[in-house]
Amino acid sequence: MINFFTAGESHNKAIVTFIEGIPAGLKISLEKIKQELLRRRSSYGRSQRQIFEEDKFEFVSGVRYNETVGSPVCVIIWNKDYREEEFVLQQIPTQPHLTPRPGHADLAGVMKYLRQDIKDISERASARETVGRVVAGSICKQLLEKFGIFIGSFVVKIYNIEFDKNYITSDEKVLIKYHNLAEESLVRFPDRAKEEKILQQINNTRDKKDTIGGEFVVFACGVPTGLGSHVQWYQRLNAKIAYYLFSIPSVKSVEFGLGKSYSNFFGSQVHDKIYYDTKKGFYRKTNNAGGIEGGISNGQPIIVRCTLKPIPTLYNPLDSVNIKTKKSSKAEVIRSDICVVPSAAVIAEAMLAICLANEVKIKFGGDSMKEILQNYKSFLQMQRRL
Amino acid sequence: MINFFTAGESHNKAIVTFIEGIPAGLKISLEKIKQELLRRRSSYGRSQRQIFEEDKFEFVSGVRYNETVGSPVCVIIWNKDYREEEFVLQQIPTQPHLTPRPGHADLAGVMKYLRQDIKDISERASARETVGRVVAGSICKQLLEKFGIFIGSFVVKIYNIEFDKNYITSDEKVLIKYHNLAEESLVRFPDRAKEEKILQQINNTRDKKDTIGGEFVVFACGVPTGLGSHVQWYQRLNAKIAYYLFSIPSVKSVEFGLGKSYSNFFGSQVHDKIYYDTKKGFYRKTNNAGGIEGGISNGQPIIVRCTLKPIPTLYNPLDSVNIKTKKSSKAEVIRSDICVVPSAAVIAEAMLAICLANEVKIKFGGDSMKEILQNYKSFLQMQRRL
Amino acid sequence: MINFFTAGESHNKAIVTFIEGIPAGLKISLEKIKQELLRRRSSYGRSQRQIFEEDKFEFVSGVRYNETVGSPVCVIIWNKDYREEEFVLQQIPTQPHLTPRPGHADLAGVMKYLRQDIKDISERASARETVGRVVAGSICKQLLEKFGIFIGSFVVKIYNIEFDKNYITSDEKVLIKYHNLAEESLVRFPDRAKEEKILQQINNTRDKKDTIGGEFVVFACGVPTGLGSHVQWYQRLNAKIAYYLFSIPSVKSVEFGLGKSYSNFFGSQVHDKIYYDTKKGFYRKTNNAGGIEGGISNGQPIIVRCTLKPIPTLYNPLDSVNIKTKKSSKAEVIRSDICVVPSAAVIAEAMLAICLANEVKIKFGGDSMKEILQNYKSFLQMQRRL
Amino acid sequence: MINFFTAGESHNKAIVTFIEGIPAGLKISLEKIKQELLRRRSSYGRSQRQIFEEDKFEFVSGVRYNETVGSPVCVIIWNKDYREEEFVLQQIPTQPHLTPRPGHADLAGVMKYLRQDIKDISERASARETVGRVVAGSICKQLLEKFGIFIGSFVVKIYNIEFDKNYITSDEKVLIKYHNLAEESLVRFPDRAKEEKILQQINNTRDKKDTIGGEFVVFACGVPTGLGSHVQWYQRLNAKIAYYLFSIPSVKSVEFGLGKSYSNFFGSQVHDKIYYDTKKGFYRKTNNAGGIEGGISNGQPIIVRCTLKPIPTLYNPLDSVNIKTKKSSKAEVIRSDICVVPSAAVIAEAMLAICLANEVKIKFGGDSMKEILQNYKSFLQMQRRL
Repeated sequence: MINFFTAGESHNKAIVTFIEGIPAGLKISLEKIKQELLRRRSSYGRSQRQIFEEDKFEFVSGVRYNETVGSPVCVIIWNKDYREEEFVLQQIPTQPHLTPRPGHADLAGVMKYLRQDIKDISERASARETVGRVVAGSICKQLLEKFGIFIGSFVVKIYNIEFDKNYITSDEKVLIKYHNLAEESLVRFPDRAKEEKILQQINNTRDKKDTIGGEFVVFACGVPTGLGSHVQWYQRLNAKIAYYLFSIPSVKSVEFGLGKSYSNFFGSQVHDKIYYDTKKGFYRKTNNAGGIEGGISNGQPIIVRCTLKPIPTLYNPLDSVNIKTKKSSKAEVIRSDICVVPSAAVIAEAMLAICLANEVKIKFGGDSMKEILQNYKSFLQMQRRL
Repeated sequence: MINFFTAGESHNKAIVTFIEGIPAGLKISLEKIKQELLRRRSSYGRSQRQIFEEDKFEFVSGVRYNETVGSPVCVIIWNKDYREEEFVLQQIPTQPHLTPRPGHADLAGVMKYLRQDIKDISERASARETVGRVVAGSICKQLLEKFGIFIGSFVVKIYNIEFDKNYITSDEKVLIKYHNLAEESLVRFPDRAKEEKILQQINNTRDKKDTIGGEFVVFACGVPTGLGSHVQWYQRLNAKIAYYLFSIPSVKSVEFGLGKSYSNFFGSQVHDKIYYDTKKGFYRKTNNAGGIEGGISNGQPIIVRCTLKPIPTLYNPLDSVNIKTKKSSKAEVIRSDICVVPSAAVIAEAMLAICLANEVKIKFGGDSMKEILQNYKSFLQMQRRL
Repeated sequence: MINFFTAGESHNKAIVTFIEGIPAGLKISLEKIKQELLRRRSSYGRSQRQIFEEDKFEFVSGVRYNETVGSPVCVIIWNKDYREEEFVLQQIPTQPHLTPRPGHADLAGVMKYLRQDIKDISERASARETVGRVVAGSICKQLLEKFGIFIGSFVVKIYNIEFDKNYITSDEKVLIKYHNLAEESLVRFPDRAKEEKILQQINNTRDKKDTIGGEFVVFACGVPTGLGSHVQWYQRLNAKIAYYLFSIPSVKSVEFGLGKSYSNFFGSQVHDKIYYDTKKGFYRKTNNAGGIEGGISNGQPIIVRCTLKPIPTLYNPLDSVNIKTKKSSKAEVIRSDICVVPSAAVIAEAMLAICLANEVKIKFGGDSMKEILQNYKSFLQMQRRL
Repeated sequence: MINFFTAGESHNKAIVTFIEGIPAGLKISLEKIKQELLRRRSSYGRSQRQIFEEDKFEFVSGVRYNETVGSPVCVIIWNKDYREEEFVLQQIPTQPHLTPRPGHADLAGVMKYLRQDIKDISERASARETVGRVVAGSICKQLLEKFGIFIGSFVVKIYNIEFDKNYITSDEKVLIKYHNLAEESLVRFPDRAKEEKILQQINNTRDKKDTIGGEFVVFACGVPTGLGSHVQWYQRLNAKIAYYLFSIPSVKSVEFGLGKSYSNFFGSQVHDKIYYDTKKGFYRKTNNAGGIEGGISNGQPIIVRCTLKPIPTLYNPLDSVNIKTKKSSKAEVIRSDICVVPSAAVIAEAMLAICLANEVKIKFGGDSMKEILQNYKSFLQMQRRL
C-alpha cells in the first residue's frame, strides 16, 4: 500500500507531504517535481505573483542520492507567506475572521470544531494544501512511468465555452495529443481557436469581481488489465478513483467514460465490444466505459471528467453572518483567483497518479523497483497465455 | 467505525452481510428490512418473478431479542437459485462461460484472476450481491432514524425522459415529497404524468431485446453540521459518499448539488448565502452545494445524483471473443433485466445510509445507543452556543 | 491484504468466518479443516462431549469446486448448542446473568455497552468464537504450504510442569520433532515422560473445581527473509504477530525467541552471528532472535512463546457482585474446561497463519496462486543474486 | 482515530512526526515536550554527548497560538548530525556499509529491499526515530491528562539486578511512587539501594565493550472502564497495546499484569474478585489482570512489562559476512550505547499514550476537547447509573 497524507496550513510554516510505500530504488527527478509545481501554479486565471514565485521544497527523508530506499518519503514545501503572528503565541493574537464565506469550509468547520476564529479552519481548507499533493503525485508519476503508465489532463469547459471534439476513445494518441495541446495553452484548453474567448471570459469575470468554474478530463494511458476488483464494494477501481478526485476542493461531479451521457443510449449502442488480435490480444474499438468494467481496469485508457464549481472566495463578497454577533455581514475577502480549472486538472493528475500507484503496489507487491517490475512482467506474460 | 462487507455469489448458497460497529441497544425491525428488500426487487423494468419471490434472510449474530448487543451483526440471505452443481465438487463440472459480456467484469476479471471460466467472476460481480447492501443499509437507516436522519431517493431520468422540476433545494419537504411520489411509482419516478411514457419506453426496449439506463437522486435530510472534515483528503464527506456510491455496479457519474451545472454559473450566482435566525440558527435559502462545503456536512440536505449505464447483459448479445479459442463469438446471454435505475436508487439509499452511519459513529463515538444519542444531543447544544 | 473477521455468539445460530484476499486458484481441503477443528477440540483438559461432537461447517462463498475464485470466503460453523430462546424475541426473555465472573469480559463489557444482562457480553466473548479462527487459519495454512511455510506448536508448561529441552533454535527439524510429539500427546506436550504428571495435575485441578494455565510455543518454518518492515512502527512483523496472538482470549504474555531470558545475557552472547555458505546463502547457527530482526523476518524459524492464564470460569466461583442489586454474590457458573493450553496452541497456529498469509500477500502481491507463487520465486532468485 | 507516523533517517535532515486526529482546543505545552525529550535522552547507559545536546523541534502545522485546531499536527525534529554527504547526490558517494550487525535489521533489510549499502536500512532502523514517537507521545499525554489519565514507567531489571517489590497492584499510588522514584534515578530504577550496583554493571559492561538489556514496567492510571472491546479480535485493548509496544526496537517480550507468572497459579488464586462500594462503585483489591479483562479496560491501572534485549551494536563486533564479497568479517561498528532500558521505558510511555489516546478518541468521538470531555463525563454518569 501507498499511504499518502499532508499536513500544513496556508500561512503556517510549510505544507508537508508524507508518502509511504514507494518501493526502494526509484530514481527521483527533482526537475520533474519542479515542473509539476510550475504546472500547478501557472495558468491564466491565477494571480501573476503566484506563477513567478517558486515553491521551495526539500526532501527530508526516504531518499539517498536521489533514489528511494524504501523508508517513508517526507517532503517539506516551505510557505512563502509564513505569518508568524498568526501561529506563534502572541500577547495579542491577530484579528479573527468572523464572517464565513459561502461555499467554503468556513462555517461548517467552526461549527464542527467549535472554533471562534474562521482562520482555524480556512488556513487548512485552503487550496495551498494541494501543493503537497502535486509533489506526492509527481513521485507517483515517476513510479508509474516505469510501468509505461502516463497520466495527463486537459480542460474541456470553462464557464460556457466547451471543447467540442470527442475524447472518449480507446486511442491513446488522441488523449495524449489533447494533453500536449493543453500543455501549450494558458488555460490547459486543447483547442487554440477557443482559447482567446476563454481568456476574454476570465478577464470579464475578473472585472466583475466574480469567479467561474468548468470541467476537465484526467486520464491514464498504459494501465494494465487487472487493477481494482469486483469482489468487494471498496475494492472497485472507479470508486477509489472517485474518492481521490472528489477530495480535491471544489470538485462537484465525477464521470467515467461517457458518464452522464450513458443514459442517452441503449445498452447495445454503448458497451465496448470485444475483439481479439494475436498481436494486440483482446482489444476494443470504443472506450465508452472509460477504461474500467466491473470495478477493474480493462487495459483501455482510464478517462475521467470532473466539474469544478466557481471558486467561493469573491472580491465582491456574498451575504453572510458574523459568527460572534450573529449579525448580517459580507463574507470575508481573501486574496483569490478567478478560475482554477487548469490547476485543478494538474492536481487531479496527481491524485490519479497516487491512486494508481497504490493499486499497482497492491496488485504487484514488492519492496524494490526491481522486484515490482519483475512481478509486473511475469503477470503480463501469464495474462497473454490465458 | 462501522465496517461493512458482503460475501457470496449469485447462485451459490447465500449472500452474507457482515456489519460491525452498530452500537448496542438498537431495536431492529425485521419488517423494515423486508420492506427495503421488496423496494429493491420491485420495479417495472425487472422480471416479475424477481418481485414476488421473497428474499429469505436470517440474523445469525449480533442481535438478541431483536436488539443489537454490540457484537458484529451477520445476516445470511439465502439464494433462491442455489445451483449446487456449480459450486460443489463434481466429477463433471458444468459448462464454463467463455464469451465475456462487454460492459461487465467478465473479461477484466478472468484476466486479473487468471481464470478459465467467466462464471468464476460473473457470479460475484452480479448485482445479486446488492441484496446484502440493502440489508446492512436498512440496519443503518434504523440507526440514523434515531438521529432524525432520513434517507430517500427518486429517479430523475430514464433514457431520454427527464424529471423537470427543481430538487436542488434546502427545503426538506420538497425532497420528501418527491421521494413519496417515487414510492408510489412503478419506476420511482416522481412525476405521474410521465410515468406512462417511461413504461412504454421500457416495453419498447424489452421488445428490442435492449436495455436502458438513467439517473436518480439520493438524499439525506436531518444531517447535522459537522460530518466529514476538511483536514485530510480522505476525510472529506463528499469523497467518501462518492466512494460508496460508485461502488454500486453500473454507476458512471456522481454529482453533488448542482453538480455539472455549477460550471454554467458565476460564483456570485451559486454559492449558498448564509443567514441567521435565533430559532433556526444559521441557515441558507438555497442548497446548490448539496449539503456539503469543504468536505463537511453543513446542515442542509445532502443531495447526490447518479447516472446508471444501461445494463450490459443483453438478450441480443454484442460482439465478443471466446477466451479459450480466441474466436469471435456473441457474448454470453444470462437472464437479466431491462432497466434497473429504480432498484439502483434503493441500493444507493443503502450505501448512503451505511456511509452516514459510519460518519455518525466517528463523530459521536459511543458503544450504545444511549451513549451515542447523549453525545449527539450535547454536541447540538454546544453548537447552538457557539 | 487478507482481511479476517468473525461474527457469532456461543449459543446463537453460528460462528461465521469471513476471509477476504485469498488468491484465486487455491485448492481447499475440507479434510484439513476438519482436522484442525478436531485438534482444537480435543485435549485432556476439555470436556469429553466437546471432543466427540463434530463442528459442522459449510462454505457459502468464495469457493467453486473446492477451489478459491478470488471472492471473499465465508464459512458458517453451525453451533451445536443453539438456544433459540436466548436470541429470538420471546414474550418472556430468559433469566439474565447478573454476577460477572472475575477475569472475564463480563463486568467491563456490561459497563462499556451499558447492558443489563451479562449474556449480552459473555456470549460473544466466549472462546467458542475461536472455532472461526481455526477455519480461517486452516485456509491460510493451506496457502502457506504452497510457499513451503509450515506452522506448528507445542505446549511447554502446564501449571508447574515444564518442558526442559531447548527449542530456541535455527534447526527446523527440532521444532517439527516437538510439534510431532505434541500431536501424539493428549496435552500437546512434547515430553512423554512428563505427560502423565500433567494429566494427574489436570485431574487434581478438576477435583478442586479449579483451573490451570500454562505456556505454549507456536512457530513457523520456511518463512522467507523479508516479511514485515523496519520502516514504520506498525509494519514490524513481531508487533503484528503479537497483535494477532494477544487477541486470543487469556493470552497474558508473548515472547519472541529468547524473550524474557534476553535480559540475562550480554549482547555478545545472544545476537545471532552471521555466516555464509554458497549453498545455503547467509545463515545462522543460533536463533535467539526467534526469526525476526528489526521487525523483518530473517529466514530463520519464527518462534513465539505465549502464556495462558487459568480459565476464569470456575465451578467453585469467586466473589463477585450482582450488577443489579449491587449485593455481594458468587460469580455465575457456566460449563467450562479445566485447562485449555493445548487448544490455545492450536488457535495460535491459526492466528500466526492468518498473520503470515497476510504478510505474504503484502510482500508478493498477486490475485491468483499462479501469480503470487511466480512472484515469490522471482524474489528468491533476486535475493540470491544480491 | 488518531493516526501516527514518523519519517526520517538517523543522519538525514530530520525526524518528522505526523499525528492526525488530536481534537481541536488542546493547549500544547512545549515545555512538557522538551521534558519528555530530555527524559528519553538522559540515562546512565547512554553517551554523555547525547544527554546535553538538546533535540530541536518545531511545529509546522496543526497548532495556532499553542493550541490545536483540528488539522494534522506535524513536528520536525532536526537532526544534530545531519550528514549531507550521505544523502544528497554526490559524484562520489560515501563508503557503503557492507557487514551487517547481528541482531539488527541490517541483513534482513538489504535482502528485503535488495540494497547494496546497509546504511539504506540502518539509517531508518536506528533508534533515533523514536524521538518522533516521544514528541507524539507527549502530545497524547497532554490529551490524556484532561481525562485524568497518567502514564508512567520504571525499570525493574537491568541484566541480573531486579526490582523485588510488588507492583502488580490495584493501588495507583504504589505505581506512581515507583515512577517518581524512577524519575530521580539515573537508570529509572525505583530502588535506590540497588542503583549503585546497576551503575557498576553498566561500567563493567562498557569496559568489556559489551551491552546489556533488562525489563521495564509501563503503566496507565485513571483509565476508564470500557476502552477496547471483546467483539472482534483486532479490537482487544491488550492486543493493540502489545502492537504499539512491540514496535519499539529491541522489545522481545510483553506481559500484562502477572504475565508469565499466571501459569504458576490456580484460577481461584489469581482472578481479581469483584466488590462494590457506593462511593467507589465496582472495585477490586487485586489487579493481576493488569487492568484489562476480555480485551476491555476494567478501570484498574493498566500494567505492562517489557523485556529489552541488549543493544545489538557492539564495540567489540560479532562475526558477520561482507554482503558483497560474501567473506567473513566483523560487523560494522557504529557509535552506540551500553544500556537503553531506561530510554526504552520512556518511549514505551509514549507508545502507550498514543495507543490510549486513540482508544479514547474511538470511544468518546468528538472533534474538540470541549466535545470529547463532555462525552466522557456523560458516559461516566451513565456507567454509574447502570
